[in-house]
Amino acid sequence: MTSKDNVGTMIDALSPNAMPLFSKLVDFIKNECRPAEDEFEEKLEGFKIIPEILLTLQRRAKELGIWNLFMTHVHHITVHDYGLMSEQMGTSFLAAYATNCAAPDTGNMEVLHDFGTPAQKQRYLNPLMEGSMRSAFLMTEPDVASSDARNVCTEFKKETRNGVEGYVISGRKWWSTGAEDPRCGVFIVMGRVVDKGEMSKYHTMLVVPAQSLGITLVRSLTVFGYDDAPFGHAEISLEDVWVSQEDALLSSEGCGFKIAQSRLGPGRIHHCMRAIGLARRCFEIMVERMLTRKVFGKEMARHGMSQEKIADCKSDLDCARAIVLLCADKIDRIGAKAARGDISMIKYAVPDFVLRIVDKAMQVHGGMGMCEDTMLPRAYSYVRTLRIADGPDEVHKMVVAREECKAALKRMGVEVGAATRSKL
Amino acid sequence: MTSKDNVGTMIDALSPNAMPLFSKLVDFIKNECRPAEDEFEEKLEGFKIIPEILLTLQRRAKELGIWNLFMTHVHHITVHDYGLMSEQMGTSFLAAYATNCAAPDTGNMEVLHDFGTPAQKQRYLNPLMEGSMRSAFLMTEPDVASSDARNVCTEFKKETRNGVEGYVISGRKWWSTGAEDPRCGVFIVMGRVVDKGEMSKYHTMLVVPAQSLGITLVRSLTVFGYDDAPFGHAEISLEDVWVSQEDALLSSEGCGFKIAQSRLGPGRIHHCMRAIGLARRCFEIMVERMLTRKVFGKEMARHGMSQEKIADCKSDLDCARAIVLLCADKIDRIGAKAARGDISMIKYAVPDFVLRIVDKAMQVHGGMGMCEDTMLPRAYSYVRTLRIADGPDEVHKMVVAREECKAALKRMGVEVGAATRSKL
Amino acid sequence: MTSKDNVGTMIDALSPNAMPLFSKLVDFIKNECRPAEDEFEEKLEGFKIIPEILLTLQRRAKELGIWNLFMTHVHHITVHDYGLMSEQMGTSFLAAYATNCAAPDTGNMEVLHDFGTPAQKQRYLNPLMEGSMRSAFLMTEPDVASSDARNVCTEFKKETRNGVEGYVISGRKWWSTGAEDPRCGVFIVMGRVVDKGEMSKYHTMLVVPAQSLGITLVRSLTVFGYDDAPFGHAEISLEDVWVSQEDALLSSEGCGFKIAQSRLGPGRIHHCMRAIGLARRCFEIMVERMLTRKVFGKEMARHGMSQEKIADCKSDLDCARAIVLLCADKIDRIGAKAARGDISMIKYAVPDFVLRIVDKAMQVHGGMGMCEDTMLPRAYSYVRTLRIADGPDEVHKMVVAREECKAALKRMGVEVGAATRSKL
Amino acid sequence: MTSKDNVGTMIDALSPNAMPLFSKLVDFIKNECRPAEDEFEEKLEGFKIIPEILLTLQRRAKELGIWNLFMTHVHHITVHDYGLMSEQMGTSFLAAYATNCAAPDTGNMEVLHDFGTPAQKQRYLNPLMEGSMRSAFLMTEPDVASSDARNVCTEFKKETRNGVEGYVISGRKWWSTGAEDPRCGVFIVMGRVVDKGEMSKYHTMLVVPAQSLGITLVRSLTVFGYDDAPFGHAEISLEDVWVSQEDALLSSEGCGFKIAQSRLGPGRIHHCMRAIGLARRCFEIMVERMLTRKVFGKEMARHGMSQEKIADCKSDLDCARAIVLLCADKIDRIGAKAARGDISMIKYAVPDFVLRIVDKAMQVHGGMGMCEDTMLPRAYSYVRTLRIADGPDEVHKMVVAREECKAALKRMGVEVGAATRSKL
Repeated sequence: MTSKDNVGTMIDALSPNAMPLFSKLVDFIKNECRPAEDEFEEKLEGFKIIPEILLTLQRRAKELGIWNLFMTHVHHITVHDYGLMSEQMGTSFLAAYATNCAAPDTGNMEVLHDFGTPAQKQRYLNPLMEGSMRSAFLMTEPDVASSDARNVCTEFKKETRNGVEGYVISGRKWWSTGAEDPRCGVFIVMGRVVDKGEMSKYHTMLVVPAQSLGITLVRSLTVFGYDDAPFGHAEISLEDVWVSQEDALLSSEGCGFKIAQSRLGPGRIHHCMRAIGLARRCFEIMVERMLTRKVFGKEMARHGMSQEKIADCKSDLDCARAIVLLCADKIDRIGAKAARGDISMIKYAVPDFVLRIVDKAMQVHGGMGMCEDTMLPRAYSYVRTLRIADGPDEVHKMVVAREECKAALKRMGVEVGAATRSKL
Repeated sequence: MTSKDNVGTMIDALSPNAMPLFSKLVDFIKNECRPAEDEFEEKLEGFKIIPEILLTLQRRAKELGIWNLFMTHVHHITVHDYGLMSEQMGTSFLAAYATNCAAPDTGNMEVLHDFGTPAQKQRYLNPLMEGSMRSAFLMTEPDVASSDARNVCTEFKKETRNGVEGYVISGRKWWSTGAEDPRCGVFIVMGRVVDKGEMSKYHTMLVVPAQSLGITLVRSLTVFGYDDAPFGHAEISLEDVWVSQEDALLSSEGCGFKIAQSRLGPGRIHHCMRAIGLARRCFEIMVERMLTRKVFGKEMARHGMSQEKIADCKSDLDCARAIVLLCADKIDRIGAKAARGDISMIKYAVPDFVLRIVDKAMQVHGGMGMCEDTMLPRAYSYVRTLRIADGPDEVHKMVVAREECKAALKRMGVEVGAATRSKL
Repeated sequence: MTSKDNVGTMIDALSPNAMPLFSKLVDFIKNECRPAEDEFEEKLEGFKIIPEILLTLQRRAKELGIWNLFMTHVHHITVHDYGLMSEQMGTSFLAAYATNCAAPDTGNMEVLHDFGTPAQKQRYLNPLMEGSMRSAFLMTEPDVASSDARNVCTEFKKETRNGVEGYVISGRKWWSTGAEDPRCGVFIVMGRVVDKGEMSKYHTMLVVPAQSLGITLVRSLTVFGYDDAPFGHAEISLEDVWVSQEDALLSSEGCGFKIAQSRLGPGRIHHCMRAIGLARRCFEIMVERMLTRKVFGKEMARHGMSQEKIADCKSDLDCARAIVLLCADKIDRIGAKAARGDISMIKYAVPDFVLRIVDKAMQVHGGMGMCEDTMLPRAYSYVRTLRIADGPDEVHKMVVAREECKAALKRMGVEVGAATRSKL
Repeated sequence: MTSKDNVGTMIDALSPNAMPLFSKLVDFIKNECRPAEDEFEEKLEGFKIIPEILLTLQRRAKELGIWNLFMTHVHHITVHDYGLMSEQMGTSFLAAYATNCAAPDTGNMEVLHDFGTPAQKQRYLNPLMEGSMRSAFLMTEPDVASSDARNVCTEFKKETRNGVEGYVISGRKWWSTGAEDPRCGVFIVMGRVVDKGEMSKYHTMLVVPAQSLGITLVRSLTVFGYDDAPFGHAEISLEDVWVSQEDALLSSEGCGFKIAQSRLGPGRIHHCMRAIGLARRCFEIMVERMLTRKVFGKEMARHGMSQEKIADCKSDLDCARAIVLLCADKIDRIGAKAARGDISMIKYAVPDFVLRIVDKAMQVHGGMGMCEDTMLPRAYSYVRTLRIADGPDEVHKMVVAREECKAALKRMGVEVGAATRSKL
């Protein structure tokens, strides 16, 4: 991709602070990350090690100052700026890791930054910011419908041990991305406090060392057959894991949802823009293949059915990109909370566009598009999970419908009381 | 619609000159155009008259200075500004007529402004700008596939009469929108010069008085049963219509395509944004209906299938809107010619989004959505024609595919010679 | 269409009794109905008269014995046989009228046959069977969501006049197809009995002479822009219309729903198969156009985008056809009630397939496909109403979901009590 | 699935010979194959061994006489009968292997049966029929666009060694399914004879022992992230592999395409029906999940968006099933060659329907639907390859378009010469 393609419209305009960072990032991805992909793959040994090449890339990114870019306030850049950077990162699967901008660390660092105690920051945030530690976010549970997050029911039983107040954690979590990374040092865990036998209806978050007694990594989950080593998606059992309140409690009891929400807004911009960067790469290799492969006497690109595919991909890509960058801009102007309707909208709309593109690219590549010779099936499987992770499409559609109904009621001059709203 | 909804993102930002015009336009449409719609419909008598209420609206718009806004250079506004205005106009079918911004006059005025002789401007452009005359554009022919415009074959036979050089026009045109308006005074006609029995391979445009001898209005075409009176879509026969070269020739012989192209760029922004404004109105009445109609014990809005419809409409609308306004912005920055790929893209992508919205709104309205009690079926039929008019989807998809292939070849480092390009 | 195309599979096999009728029908439509279409259109004068050519066709059909074929038990043919005949009828808009097989008369005749008193049969059924009278079905009301038919609220107030027990009807109905036909003699009206000021929660049907005092034809509804003269869709006001119970009551009070249901099963087969016949005709003219129209140097049929359209239409058509004929076969074997899940399924699935086909055919015809030069836009508008009439898609999807859930519960070994079922 | 669901329509009717086989097969799959799935998975050790449980199932199937059912003429059953059996097999991934009905052996056995010499039958067909040997079909090549099979270019260079006429095979093949099965004993290889330095334009097929000198298994291809052990999809290098003409030549030189075609007709019925059986299983677990999982206060099955999914799956499933079984019936009546248009149609239409169903089932299962806890992602990846294997959708759409154009030309009365046909 050349940034040239999209120069010319307002959504491509970076703020002054972002420009030099963006240039360095583009060069770094093009000249260092993408060429390193094959070596990284070859050196993989399951979850045992992190191939050295990634650590090298991390050192380079740090030197270049393109490190922790997701901390937009540190770099004095906007969410929109970082959206454009995320798109670039999406074009190489190593880029987000290399620049310490990969999920779930980004969200976890934000949470620790905003809600952590000085001790928690010292112990976890600093090494995470350095890239020497990684983290996981333990939210979803196999036994409940986590699409309605209120169902989460891991127990934090209040219990004083050796005179220290604390919690005994019991529960089972899964889809804990990054938990298997050998560098993973900390888990942020969602659950509900149980006090005197009664479970609170509000959720709480605890920060728990990954190696605590009672934590067992049950298995590595696969996604369409991929184990996504060396980072992985773990199923984790927590049995009788005791932590002290002082060490572990994030913010205060019952604040779990508030904290969870705070992770989500900008995070969805990042996810969507990376998916769009990935889609762009798939689109590009699709067109390139069409130009170099002959069938029935002429290049694929000259067949009508191919042309229709190109045209459809182009509009899908541009639509996806436009609504996400505009949503980022909205967050910059009015904040993530006020923009929540738009954030939910991109959450369901973008993966759909991106999957259509990746699917067409697979089709055009024939047998090669099904196997490890391209990144296409892995891209498909990754983006497919985005329709489920962080709330399935259906939930976000409900949110958008509710927002639109509220706007309509207002337009119609109907007073919207809490009762009416809650029923929508 | 309140403009409030979209305040907050960059594509909604008007340039300073546009702001007061936009405000006046919004008020005018809301307070004068929409309330006048019913009266206009009731007073219609086929193609015989223009209901007085429209003429009143025109006088008002002129007074307010929101007149000929499409002439962006006159008002020192951008194509993007005018895009936002077109969206507003799309919310009332009277608005474009009331502000002298309706097709095909807009394109015809641009053509006369850019290519007309002083005499042509005097005779036609001035009354068109005043709104006292209307015009038609005679391009498409029933007997050839006009999707490939090179097929157009109306003859302009060179013939000197009474010592004056001129052309004898013979041909048949259709889909000449506005030709039946009682005020229609001039036709711009596309054809090919025949000199000494040989037809030129290049096209030429002539300006022809609507009442010239030899011109017959064969019939009014209907669109899904609508005759679109009092403006209409005419099939027109031209037999032995003589015009002098001096009076009629636009620019010079063989320049027809160049002129036709010049009409299209901004024109497509207008069409798309009006369609989007229309879609917004349909979306709004859909949600309002859902909030006020009960089925199976609760408001439609509280049924899951309705919520999914709302969410899908919302993302469709936002996508359509974003890509068109960004395309307008691109035209402002690099010109319509360089943005032709984007212009083709919105041409096929937007009607598809809009039709999906209108179709859902019809479904939600049940029997009422099929008949004259809402503007929905008329909206559907109007937008459906946009997939054909000014080049069908298929042609624009070919254009986009070609542009993307060229970009890919460049990226791949392949020299793109004329031969290769022409084969794509 | 030649029946040849589909010979070879089991769904095309007619029962022995049906074969000679089918052959005669095919020839009649091909040689008499389709050639008569233009004359019928030309002779139309709104709702004033029925063009003579239709009456001639009716006489011919009666002579040929292809009359009232929908009365399958009379002809000793199956619902499946009649499905294949309906498909043929769909290929000419005159065929169903010519053979006295047009809605709503077919359903009304079935109702009168099954539930009418001897006097009702004498007065209404006989002339309807003869084709000398037509009828309308007054069900839907403008002021309620008729998709939930329980909302229908026309009042039948019990009132004895001149010592005769009867009902005073008050209400407003719309979408009463055929009510404007000059031959229309009878209405079947759905409503609820009001006795001593209390409205029954069960519905009742009355047979009412079309010319009764108090009945006013308020207006002709259009579908898109078509008024469908000379048959039409009427909005009808019923004010203080008194009928005697003996003359008017169908079956008994409170049986309205039972009667309404009985109309629907086979009727949906008819509607779907006629739509499929229509789709086949659209598909055929699409391919023929592609073979005779050149764009960009070759026949449209040789362009890849056209080929994809043909292939998609073909599979859409075959799918639609297969599920309807199999549903008809199921009705023959286990009855309409047991097949209600399948009947609901074809009700939403078929119009969707057919609309896709008609839409592609319109696109391929360009401007010609939008206007009266083909039957395409009229076909589109007609089929579009099928997604709403007799229950919108959404309601039928709920029915199918409920049936599938019941089957799953049974498979899972869960006892399905009435309570559980009612909540699905 | 209970066969009960579909009893009642003609496409479910088995011929008398098929009935007892079908019953036994249904019971065998339900009571023996499905319960064995978990053990099979647990005992897998890559490509090293075939878990004993499969061999046990094979013995059982042989005892029961439900063995080699694809050899329809042996069992005196129809292609349609076997279609219904294939649907059942699709509901357990072990069933086709257990009954010796798995691809590519089925096609290979047919080829050997129809074209093999007595010696070839003795050496290969017999053990394949016994289930003691497996086979692979080496067609597709990584370096050419195999969607146009004429591009296949493996060389069979004529060379006499030790006085015996033979061929030296050189080429590279991939997507050779089953080649890694430890029991694989024979490859059928497509290529072109090279005689005196000149490559024939016609293709030839050779039967080659899997362990021949010069054959190297380069790698196991993955599909998405699955290696499909213990059967696998291999990339295979053939270098200087000499075989004698007498041993290896199938039929005669230049007959490769004719033989390849013969494999395809019924084979596509098998593939499609197995995919449909698989879709049915996915659909069933989707509905069951919806009935047992609560979100936002009620079972998923009671949410409107879920109901719409169920309804859409149901019609997709029924459409897919109907067109394939009717196509099978057509093959039974007029032969695979005459039914080739229908065979191509099901080839592109069915995977599309099935993928929609599997995708919805994944979505409903949330995180569980992405990982190994259900067969859903594996089902998706398997069915996705069907859009590419044996000719991609695009090629089959071209075939159908050509057939429809020919039918249209005939209908239009145009003589279709070879020249015209070839250009379609």
